[in-house]
Amino acid sequence: MPAGKLNVIPLGGLGEFGMNCMAIRWADDIIVIDCGLMFPEAELLGVDIVVPDLTYLIENRDKVKAVVLTHGHEDHIGGLPWFLAEFNVPVYGTEFTLALVENKLEEHGLLDDAELNEIKPAERFRIGPFTINPIRVTHSIVDCVSLAIHTPIGVIIHTGDFKVDPTPTDNQLFDLHTFAEYGKEGVLALFQDSTNVERSGYTPSERAVRTKFEEVFHRASKRLFISCFSSSIHRIKLATEMAFQHNRKVALVGRSMTESSEIALDLGYLDIPDGLLIHPGQIKDFAPERVCVMISGTQGEPMSALSRAAVDNHKHAKIESGDTVVLSSRIIPGNEKAIYRVVDHLFRREANVVYDDGSWPPVHVSGHASQEELRLIINLVKPKFFIPIHGEYRQLRRHLELAKSMHGAVGQAMMIESGDILEFDELGARKSGKIAVGRVCIDSGSMGEVVEDLVIRDRRHLSEDGIVLPIVAINKLTGDVESVEIITRGFASASIESEITAQSRDVMTKTLEGSSTEEMRDYGVVKEKIRQDLKRFIVKSTARRPLILPVILEI
Amino acid sequence: MPAGKLNVIPLGGLGEFGMNCMAIRWADDIIVIDCGLMFPEAELLGVDIVVPDLTYLIENRDKVKAVVLTHGHEDHIGGLPWFLAEFNVPVYGTEFTLALVENKLEEHGLLDDAELNEIKPAERFRIGPFTINPIRVTHSIVDCVSLAIHTPIGVIIHTGDFKVDPTPTDNQLFDLHTFAEYGKEGVLALFQDSTNVERSGYTPSERAVRTKFEEVFHRASKRLFISCFSSSIHRIKLATEMAFQHNRKVALVGRSMTESSEIALDLGYLDIPDGLLIHPGQIKDFAPERVCVMISGTQGEPMSALSRAAVDNHKHAKIESGDTVVLSSRIIPGNEKAIYRVVDHLFRREANVVYDDGSWPPVHVSGHASQEELRLIINLVKPKFFIPIHGEYRQLRRHLELAKSMHGAVGQAMMIESGDILEFDELGARKSGKIAVGRVCIDSGSMGEVVEDLVIRDRRHLSEDGIVLPIVAINKLTGDVESVEIITRGFASASIESEITAQSRDVMTKTLEGSSTEEMRDYGVVKEKIRQDLKRFIVKSTARRPLILPVILEI
Repeated sequence: MPAGKLNVIPLGGLGEFGMNCMAIRWADDIIVIDCGLMFPEAELLGVDIVVPDLTYLIENRDKVKAVVLTHGHEDHIGGLPWFLAEFNVPVYGTEFTLALVENKLEEHGLLDDAELNEIKPAERFRIGPFTINPIRVTHSIVDCVSLAIHTPIGVIIHTGDFKVDPTPTDNQLFDLHTFAEYGKEGVLALFQDSTNVERSGYTPSERAVRTKFEEVFHRASKRLFISCFSSSIHRIKLATEMAFQHNRKVALVGRSMTESSEIALDLGYLDIPDGLLIHPGQIKDFAPERVCVMISGTQGEPMSALSRAAVDNHKHAKIESGDTVVLSSRIIPGNEKAIYRVVDHLFRREANVVYDDGSWPPVHVSGHASQEELRLIINLVKPKFFIPIHGEYRQLRRHLELAKSMHGAVGQAMMIESGDILEFDELGARKSGKIAVGRVCIDSGSMGEVVEDLVIRDRRHLSEDGIVLPIVAINKLTGDVESVEIITRGFASASIESEITAQSRDVMTKTLEGSSTEEMRDYGVVKEKIRQDLKRFIVKSTARRPLILPVILEI
Repeated sequence: MPAGKLNVIPLGGLGEFGMNCMAIRWADDIIVIDCGLMFPEAELLGVDIVVPDLTYLIENRDKVKAVVLTHGHEDHIGGLPWFLAEFNVPVYGTEFTLALVENKLEEHGLLDDAELNEIKPAERFRIGPFTINPIRVTHSIVDCVSLAIHTPIGVIIHTGDFKVDPTPTDNQLFDLHTFAEYGKEGVLALFQDSTNVERSGYTPSERAVRTKFEEVFHRASKRLFISCFSSSIHRIKLATEMAFQHNRKVALVGRSMTESSEIALDLGYLDIPDGLLIHPGQIKDFAPERVCVMISGTQGEPMSALSRAAVDNHKHAKIESGDTVVLSSRIIPGNEKAIYRVVDHLFRREANVVYDDGSWPPVHVSGHASQEELRLIINLVKPKFFIPIHGEYRQLRRHLELAKSMHGAVGQAMMIESGDILEFDELGARKSGKIAVGRVCIDSGSMGEVVEDLVIRDRRHLSEDGIVLPIVAINKLTGDVESVEIITRGFASASIESEITAQSRDVMTKTLEGSSTEEMRDYGVVKEKIRQDLKRFIVKSTARRPLILPVILEI
């Protein structure tokens, strides 16, 4: 065994939900596994997305050799534009993952300079001292891999996100054999996904959703709207197949749904018969029972297509009494109120709403491994060291306990958090230090906005760009707007500020007047509309980007 | 049948979660069933509680004759202080319900003027044209009743909150017989709790929790902390019984836990052997394995005893490595992040944390009826008209569908929302109009604050009292406070304002300096502490109560 130290340093995702990112270092070579984003907590008002702080990598700039991706979910690739703006290194990922990355980089004008290298399961590739073997796994998105990384002192396996689906819809089976072989040969360390460690038993196969979809298609007598995560190609495939069988045309509504489906179509992950797809503008030309609309917005995002359709404010997606709306997704914690608000609006439109209410068969299944699957992989891999990844603190902790109780299958279970340096050498493994990590807040505009608005907004610049608080007082009894106020601080000189304030008030008033009664009842929508309109106005007239925090008061 | 019209007018709780309140009117007599509060949505920043708008009752002041309570949960009695400040009418409720009401009215200095009339299950009483028969039901709190209200044109039944628990811990059985008798005699209308209409099957009995508690008590080797809703006398009874069996002393920590237990002890709903209870200050005097602490704060409320103990900031409740902490409660939607934050802190203290993770046996069971129980009551009562109550719009809607499908058991199912006037006469029932309803926002100080701070803060006065935005910029990497800013608008003259602003900045700085590192990581706590300290300072120095909205920015 060569002398030297292997360092594994999570930069995000261990002790927090999202922004998964991990540095693997041997001497003067660093590779980065994934670079995700997280959606901010409510406390971080006015912030759109959060990415990992890359200071450690910046301080070791010349050592950073590549970034390797496990799959294409936002919490694994969403931080890439900010990463690549700093480090122009090669990106490795599977076909579908890279297609999503391409799209993202193009939006940021970074695609031309990027070096994207496609990898395939079971085809090893080399980066400096590391030989990497991608192993096919199953998950809610297609084309996912775990990574077996051969280092000078042994093999480490990073699972990425996975579940062990024995019957994946694309028939691309989980490569249990390779895990088993590595286990036989000896694995230094296993880094395993903790997301569902609180769930006992097995996660149901993606196919479990088919039964529910069959029931839904059978029962739907008018228009059928299906919303799922836009990256859920399995789900979109299932829905389009069934639409075809039930003689319904398919319309894709919402930017993320359209983009992700187009990518999947281009690459052959989706196969839609000729003539099945229609443009959203054609929905009205077909009888309701002949239409299936795939629509973005399962999380109640205020400006998503589904949220807008729910308050009858979408040009093409009109939801009417007797239509069926399916929310085929989980409720991400923190989004409950927003999602149920959309569901309530749909019920008010007298739609039949099918959502994950705990009933069986399920309208959604998780993409993450439950306890028995986690135990299975541990048994196959038999690592010397086991380290839980991807989870909040309690999840990492429970995963640690789960592994600790597996005598004979795990040498030692260790817990680290984002920023910890885990050091391996011939003597063993230990926490050897800590680096500065953290969250960088980015005010990217919002889902509905155009892409050139995506700009890094480091809050350190707050003192330069200031803050704007639009305050709307709404009379809860009548729904009337009783007053519109704007408080600003430090974003322009006093004379400019007072002029801008007056004009901003006009902008807000116009925004409010242009909103329907239903929108006005939904404060999430009102705030987002005000924020977008004001931002556009202020950026245009002052070239500044103050933090805009709309406040609504009921009176 | 006498000529005349019976009006049923929900003032809250139909189409929203909480603040249940319903007016029943015959000619010149109005009785009010329950008067609850709701906890505000995140959008209503700076508001503590929300109560129903009572304008309709105020406009018919001389007709309001009494308020009748079904049980003592906050969403049914929490609005009473504001109700009774307007209408000094008799309050009817069961023994335990009135004891909670007494406590609440005493805090508001309203007890001396209040007329509280104790009612008992199956003992009828009369208010004007109404004869009311309280029917014993089971729920998560003790001493609950449904109300059969005999009106001049027939009997209507209001279920209150209930589940059909065949084995309640207090052996006070659900009075199915009376429901059956009414069903035989004929019921005009059934108003039934919709909370759990989305759940299939039966809700497990409160006794199902015992198995889990036995396991917990058996395994706990050091201190045992149990948190549950303070009104869950069933749960507190179970815990104290098991503590006694396992030779652990019991300490009650947190104001709501202490108060509610004392009431239950006084009235005999709890029976604690002499010498079992110890004062929180004595916890340290006993060996860890001899102590069980009942502690407030299941919902992650930032200033609750459990939240403070979780960051090692409680005088008496010290949680150490190896201690066990049980959260025996459900997660109220919207509180996920706050609760998991507390759970994470507990894991960091290396406590064994037992929470509702979906595993069986359950550490918490719901107090509300699932679908089969709802169907059972409908079958027993066989109402001419069925109206779902207590639920968000989708729940009311699903309850309506459930009832509609019960041919032979329901004459007609109707859906109304808060503010709708439902009119009954000899010809039938119909929506006959709408009154103005809404939410009144109250800034009551917070759980941690003393009671004299409870003041109605109608937001109409915002223009008089102004707004204060304390803004703290925290460096996420170091945790340091980088800047402290205060923005104010319209709460004092310019010269006073600038002085107050400077002093407020000092107050904030002091608050921040006095906070532990763990508290500083928890923005919920930081914001609440700033709000409390600033409020105290501003009220004292200006006698004004501006709206205070702390903002934290990560930089």
